[in-house]
Amino acid sequence: MYQENKYSSKLLNNAVEEFSKLPGIGGKTALRLVLHLLKKSEEEVNLFGETIIELKKNIKKCKICKNVSDDEICEICSDSERDRKTICLVENINDVIAIEKTGQYKGLYHVLGGLISPMEGTGPDNLEINSLIERIKSSDIQEIIFALNSTPEGETTNYYTYKKVSGFGVRVTTLAKGVSVGSELQYVDELTLGRSIIDRISFF
Amino acid sequence: MYQENKYSSKLLNNAVEEFSKLPGIGGKTALRLVLHLLKKSEEEVNLFGETIIELKKNIKKCKICKNVSDDEICEICSDSERDRKTICLVENINDVIAIEKTGQYKGLYHVLGGLISPMEGTGPDNLEINSLIERIKSSDIQEIIFALNSTPEGETTNYYTYKKVSGFGVRVTTLAKGVSVGSELQYVDELTLGRSIIDRISFF
Repeated sequence: MYQENKYSSKLLNNAVEEFSKLPGIGGKTALRLVLHLLKKSEEEVNLFGETIIELKKNIKKCKICKNVSDDEICEICSDSERDRKTICLVENINDVIAIEKTGQYKGLYHVLGGLISPMEGTGPDNLEINSLIERIKSSDIQEIIFALNSTPEGETTNYYTYKKVSGFGVRVTTLAKGVSVGSELQYVDELTLGRSIIDRISFF
Repeated sequence: MYQENKYSSKLLNNAVEEFSKLPGIGGKTALRLVLHLLKKSEEEVNLFGETIIELKKNIKKCKICKNVSDDEICEICSDSERDRKTICLVENINDVIAIEKTGQYKGLYHVLGGLISPMEGTGPDNLEINSLIERIKSSDIQEIIFALNSTPEGETTNYYTYKKVSGFGVRVTTLAKGVSVGSELQYVDELTLGRSIIDRISFF
């Protein structure tokens, strides 16, 4: 009797179902979150729901770098203190966040929005590669740092994009591969350790 | 620069902040959930937000048992197939859900909405004890099963409520204490094992 209508309240069921759709949130966690919200004031719950709706409704893609943005041009692209001659090429917004967190990068970004993946049906035209070329043509870009994942899809996209951007006289670099800071050598995988020897740098 | 405005987008920040308020959801998980929602269609995200808002806006307290309900009277209380002479006294909706899941109980419930806890400032008047007394007075209740947590607060509430309901000629019972089904004796705590010997039942 309580299978379809698991919690004897449709409202409760619907809310639990919505939370369960989120990645990594199972039925039990969803119920816990919903019961937590039930204890909150109507204002707090409205704020929760409306903030999510507003996000999706109002968020834009930056016209320049294709990162998510509140305005036509994102905060990073409109920041006059950043180095406008360097572009870091990343797959998605998570990568922008990860690199921003390091505090080591002061240039701009270009967010591809994915990687070339025939398996998933993602071709070059589904990605922001043409807009990257346009950017290189229309502004004074001197370096592009390729910062895509070291996966087959990443390598394919690297290769394809490299072919496209070479010929514009832009310096193309990529992230250094090597042992992690603080890592113990015995636990570093062979490929990485091998690369770190080949790409060794001067000590001082 | 990116501390206050952590993700270079206020909309994104606000959404991550709202998710972070939920129990057990840290900043990283909140970001993951928000980025997941960003990938969904506007309809799906609206459905998510509105379902949560609708829940809080429209959910009611059942007039009889004080459980959450879509209508004035909840599904359990309005189910004519349930045993209307037995009430199971529980702390909150989670307990109703847990007992319903067993499929072993066909009576009604009474949801106290908490436990007596001087530490948290919860007294008997903050709980649905008086409404329980009214229920006993106004309908033909023959048994009340006390199913509160075995905590000091639960015991205090048990004792107080028992005092209140005794004198109405209602049979008062409580959940059997004993070893868990499928448990290994060596791992059962002494108090529980002791109670299970004292309360031993006939084998057939």
